[in-house]
Amino acid sequence: MDALAKYRNLLGDMGRYGSALRLLSWDQETHMPPKGIEARSEATGMLSRKRFELLVSDELARCLAELREADGLSEVERASVRHVGKEHSRNRAIPPALVEEKSAAEAQAQAAWAAARKASDFAAFLPHLEKMVGYARQFAEYYGYDEHPYDALLEDFEPGMTCRKLRAIIEPLRAELVPFLKKLVDEGTAPDASFLRGTYRVDEQRRLSRRALEVILYDFEAGGLADVAHPFTILIAPGDVRVTNRYVESDVLSGIFGALHEGGHALYNQGIPAELYRLGVAGGASNGIHESQSRMIENQVGRSLEFWNFFQPVLAEHFPQFGRVAPQALFAAANLVAPSFIRVDADEVTYNFHVMLRFEIEAGLIDGSIEAADLPELWNDAMKRYLGIVPPSDAQGVLQDVHWSVGAFGYFPSYMLGNLYAAQLYATMRDQVPHLDAAIGRGDLKPLVGWLRENVHRYGAMYEPQELMERITGHELDSAHFVRYVKEKYGAIYGCQTPSDS
Amino acid sequence: MDALAKYRNLLGDMGRYGSALRLLSWDQETHMPPKGIEARSEATGMLSRKRFELLVSDELARCLAELREADGLSEVERASVRHVGKEHSRNRAIPPALVEEKSAAEAQAQAAWAAARKASDFAAFLPHLEKMVGYARQFAEYYGYDEHPYDALLEDFEPGMTCRKLRAIIEPLRAELVPFLKKLVDEGTAPDASFLRGTYRVDEQRRLSRRALEVILYDFEAGGLADVAHPFTILIAPGDVRVTNRYVESDVLSGIFGALHEGGHALYNQGIPAELYRLGVAGGASNGIHESQSRMIENQVGRSLEFWNFFQPVLAEHFPQFGRVAPQALFAAANLVAPSFIRVDADEVTYNFHVMLRFEIEAGLIDGSIEAADLPELWNDAMKRYLGIVPPSDAQGVLQDVHWSVGAFGYFPSYMLGNLYAAQLYATMRDQVPHLDAAIGRGDLKPLVGWLRENVHRYGAMYEPQELMERITGHELDSAHFVRYVKEKYGAIYGCQTPSDS
Repeated sequence: MDALAKYRNLLGDMGRYGSALRLLSWDQETHMPPKGIEARSEATGMLSRKRFELLVSDELARCLAELREADGLSEVERASVRHVGKEHSRNRAIPPALVEEKSAAEAQAQAAWAAARKASDFAAFLPHLEKMVGYARQFAEYYGYDEHPYDALLEDFEPGMTCRKLRAIIEPLRAELVPFLKKLVDEGTAPDASFLRGTYRVDEQRRLSRRALEVILYDFEAGGLADVAHPFTILIAPGDVRVTNRYVESDVLSGIFGALHEGGHALYNQGIPAELYRLGVAGGASNGIHESQSRMIENQVGRSLEFWNFFQPVLAEHFPQFGRVAPQALFAAANLVAPSFIRVDADEVTYNFHVMLRFEIEAGLIDGSIEAADLPELWNDAMKRYLGIVPPSDAQGVLQDVHWSVGAFGYFPSYMLGNLYAAQLYATMRDQVPHLDAAIGRGDLKPLVGWLRENVHRYGAMYEPQELMERITGHELDSAHFVRYVKEKYGAIYGCQTPSDS
Repeated sequence: MDALAKYRNLLGDMGRYGSALRLLSWDQETHMPPKGIEARSEATGMLSRKRFELLVSDELARCLAELREADGLSEVERASVRHVGKEHSRNRAIPPALVEEKSAAEAQAQAAWAAARKASDFAAFLPHLEKMVGYARQFAEYYGYDEHPYDALLEDFEPGMTCRKLRAIIEPLRAELVPFLKKLVDEGTAPDASFLRGTYRVDEQRRLSRRALEVILYDFEAGGLADVAHPFTILIAPGDVRVTNRYVESDVLSGIFGALHEGGHALYNQGIPAELYRLGVAGGASNGIHESQSRMIENQVGRSLEFWNFFQPVLAEHFPQFGRVAPQALFAAANLVAPSFIRVDADEVTYNFHVMLRFEIEAGLIDGSIEAADLPELWNDAMKRYLGIVPPSDAQGVLQDVHWSVGAFGYFPSYMLGNLYAAQLYATMRDQVPHLDAAIGRGDLKPLVGWLRENVHRYGAMYEPQELMERITGHELDSAHFVRYVKEKYGAIYGCQTPSDS
């Protein structure tokens, strides 16, 4: 068998293990009964090991070496060799004993974090946090980097991104957004959202979520919608991309935006060709690009006046009390801006601040300029600087996110990058697709989804994010698009536009 | 590592593959979207192969050989060596190429059967049926047998059962039941079931099924209930035993009895200790014993007057139209007897006839005394003999069951044996548990489930069925218990008891 055939076989088996693992994981969050956890962990552990053994195998190393020199590979195959090759090398770089040690420590740290958050007791989490920071630093050294150890970790989530680049992106963004937020709060008029107060039956919200997913052209023949505590989207395999959602009885909008957000991720996954999946390049260009797809559907589409023009009657079919509410009122109420403590509840204007402060802290923890013990103080200081508020407890502050307890340092920037990519992609799409707003206003998302399929989805992980952005928009990420979008939209809603914003 | 530790490790891995496979299979019937089937088949194929490789491995052979000679094994360990050893030898006995060939032919035969049944076109299925009979005969030769090739196939479903024993069980049963059915039909008064006609909301039926499962002490913390087209129960792993059900809008009883039937299987699985699972003896003593547990909960319990005494108010909570219906009326209506064409819809009195005729045909096909081409005629003759009716089409006759298309020759007798085991076990339980009927009449199933746990469930597959029956009831299977049960119950309902029946 030649190297390519052998390579494809290996990736095929890895894909099949991966697919089984993702189903086990989806089931664990959706249907597995509590008493099934012990056996489930064992099955998951074994299948992960089997997949990992193939990923770091000498056989794969030999195939990759041969294919790097081979002629006549297709563009997808070459992208696969680069992409899989990187995953292979990075995983081989870490001593297996260290991986296992970290994995065990992670389980403990996550449990400790959950308990510490509940009790708002940072001191109880501190030793675990210190341990996880230690592992992250060790991993960074094994991975290697040019400038900053944090760069080595970023690579897992945002290939090609570095501390230096992130700072260059954040600096002008912060300079624009901090005064803009102040202006909105001080001079603007917040929209009225009091009419949203009420109790909304969960089963009706679930049906409404299905409607929202149908609107955005999510393919239910290749997916499904399930209830969970913490929503996510998962690509089980080609033809099987599942969305999950949660519903809050007192908040009808959160279920809708949850569905749109996850639906955006799902459209990306459903738009990636099966051939890319078979070659291990189906995961999306990066976490940030993936997030751009969810945020675009949630915010640029779902929080637009056009969307509410056609969705208000749909909402009213399920909840008749909205039959006489103007689309404009729903649009405005869906776009309240207010500094708040919790990242996942933040609006479009304040969201990125939550990420900036986490990035500062993470980078400092990894390069040693910040001690974990000082985090509560640093956190609260940064909240004050960015948002002008200080959380009343660590549970609502430094302890709110799960990420550090599972050692995911370098993940947070993806959330901000997603917002920025989304704005830039959306600006380009608007230039290229005639009558885009009018189509959305009719509930016709074919032009929009078609453009995303053609320009973003079909490439999967073939290109790194900046290369992809350049191919699509003509230049690398530039936060000016986001700033323009936010100023225009919220300036209008809050009635405080300035000449320079137009 | 000593042989026992190595053996336990191998079984552990086989169990983990099995658990993942069963989850994939459950998901395929419950939540997998249609477009996911191709990738799912690939994942299932690979994991099955991995499990199979361990099952027939030389390593397992060496462990088994060593453990057969070893001292100091526990009773469960010895049972495991016997049980797993048999599975190992049987699977090693068949040339791998033949297994693959049959597997491919099976997929085609099943598709052909589905199409042929739809068109009621036996001729279209015939060549596939002949092929499957051919494989079954080859397998029987490879497995080996003393008297009849069919015995080699029975062993998969009912260890220790043979053609000769089956005939000895069937003969007296037929001799009693044929005239008894005639008497019921000719002389008895069929209960009125017309009050059951109506439309019953599926979501309410689903809630009612949950209630029924709670009544029989099914543990939802170690399971769950999902919708499917063809109900089944599946042991994913210890602590995770799932029930499925389907609901017919026009038939409120079918959902209840479906839940009770599957719940009976599930109680068995939930009652088998994890240690037996780890040692590969958690599957139940046989298909027939498993079926005895589902039939007992469905029939001896669910179709009793005691059950309806407490369940009528529960039913009325969900469907208020039953608020003024007497439990006695529900009990009688749930026990209508009528010769019918379809096995799965048959009542307690006629069900076994459907099995007897299939057994006659199967045994003849395997020993060559019957040609597949003659099946429609033979089928209709047998229906006439046993039930006095002839199906109007092969779709409602010889083509109704999936079993032969997937090569499952020897499976059908389990259904009959389940009924007979259930009656014998129930008779013993009644002798041993004081006030059993009174407890059921109060909706208290603790004494019943406790007895099953103690006498049946906790042994899993440690003993072969006849040994188990002897341990529990003092003698091997005797159909007289079933005959007595049926005559007593239906004689009373139909008002045609005779002195000899008392």
